[in-house]
Amino acid sequence: MGDDGRLHAIDDDEASAADQSLAIDIYPLSNYYFGSKQPLLFKDETLADRVLRMKSNYAAYGLRTCVEAVLLVELFKHPHLLLFQIRNSIFKLPGGRLRPNESDIDGLTRKLSRKLSADGASDASDWEVGECLGMWWRPDFETLLFPYLSSNVKGAKECTKLFLVKLPEGRKFVVPKNLKLIAVPLCQIHENHKTYGPVISGIPQLLSKFSFNIIEN
Amino acid sequence: MGDDGRLHAIDDDEASAADQSLAIDIYPLSNYYFGSKQPLLFKDETLADRVLRMKSNYAAYGLRTCVEAVLLVELFKHPHLLLFQIRNSIFKLPGGRLRPNESDIDGLTRKLSRKLSADGASDASDWEVGECLGMWWRPDFETLLFPYLSSNVKGAKECTKLFLVKLPEGRKFVVPKNLKLIAVPLCQIHENHKTYGPVISGIPQLLSKFSFNIIEN
Repeated sequence: MGDDGRLHAIDDDEASAADQSLAIDIYPLSNYYFGSKQPLLFKDETLADRVLRMKSNYAAYGLRTCVEAVLLVELFKHPHLLLFQIRNSIFKLPGGRLRPNESDIDGLTRKLSRKLSADGASDASDWEVGECLGMWWRPDFETLLFPYLSSNVKGAKECTKLFLVKLPEGRKFVVPKNLKLIAVPLCQIHENHKTYGPVISGIPQLLSKFSFNIIEN
Repeated sequence: MGDDGRLHAIDDDEASAADQSLAIDIYPLSNYYFGSKQPLLFKDETLADRVLRMKSNYAAYGLRTCVEAVLLVELFKHPHLLLFQIRNSIFKLPGGRLRPNESDIDGLTRKLSRKLSADGASDASDWEVGECLGMWWRPDFETLLFPYLSSNVKGAKECTKLFLVKLPEGRKFVVPKNLKLIAVPLCQIHENHKTYGPVISGIPQLLSKFSFNIIEN
């Protein structure tokens, strides 16, 4: 049952080991242009307010679904993830909450246009929403997110779905003035729960089945 | 740009939020039978010996590829992962190293039959190897595994690929006497690096895009 001792030279290129995996084309950060637009209004609320709002929304609409985008660019030959940085300490993926009956793709496209495109100039074709990479569940209003549903959970309160969104070779991002868009290398995000939280810090793993085609100018 | 205020009742079943995701059928642990067979011989070596062996193998064959299986069963209405427990403290996914020029699927099938099927009685059709869930890279002999390749790495030394392997409704597992096969709930594995290491503890995230159909007798 042991190895049969054959001695063949194999192609030691990593591309060979990854040959059955999917490839993602990523383009240099310098291919993209960044402008700004009017700030977005955010609800300024305490954690207790937020829980109250979630409870009242749950009573009216049931399970709340959030959709978020994984957008990648290349910098220093390494894939970087685009994140919003809020008040220096909070990092968020672009995305947001679905309206009742809205599809994942429609909702994510709407949210991306609102936070990353020029007002009025954007349409759905701006964003190529790809596969769902993962889902996180909030079993109760006050709890953390988990990547599974426990058997003793009756009705989950919130589901967050991450989608790979493929960027074109170049485009302009127009970002509200009160949001800061940054590019963070995957190697800094990996297992860095403390800074990025469980969802974002797990993204390098969710992407690990892909090989990256870095397309230089 | 705010919500349009429509108030529709939505289906708050989690299945609805997960409707665009893939489903995995999982069966109760009690559907499976467990027997034992002769112990497998393992190389009993120090870490230094192991690094030496990896270096000599790399010189002869190049990048080493390991393939490992994610096998799921249901217990207490929660998905459980099948793992080998070695000397009470080490946990491993079923799988192993590819022979030179061997395909991922051939190699994984061979390893699963060797460690989980009756000798001689098994064939490739025993195992339904599904999609690649993730890949981990060892950039150098002495380093940890990472879910990406850094730009400054010339030639990675090892790639570990995780595959979802779908179990049939029932089957017999025949396990070498010196291995212990256990079923561990996803909720115990999630983020438990200390016990299970980075690869296994990330599996709940890699599986989070799937919904589980628990099929009871």
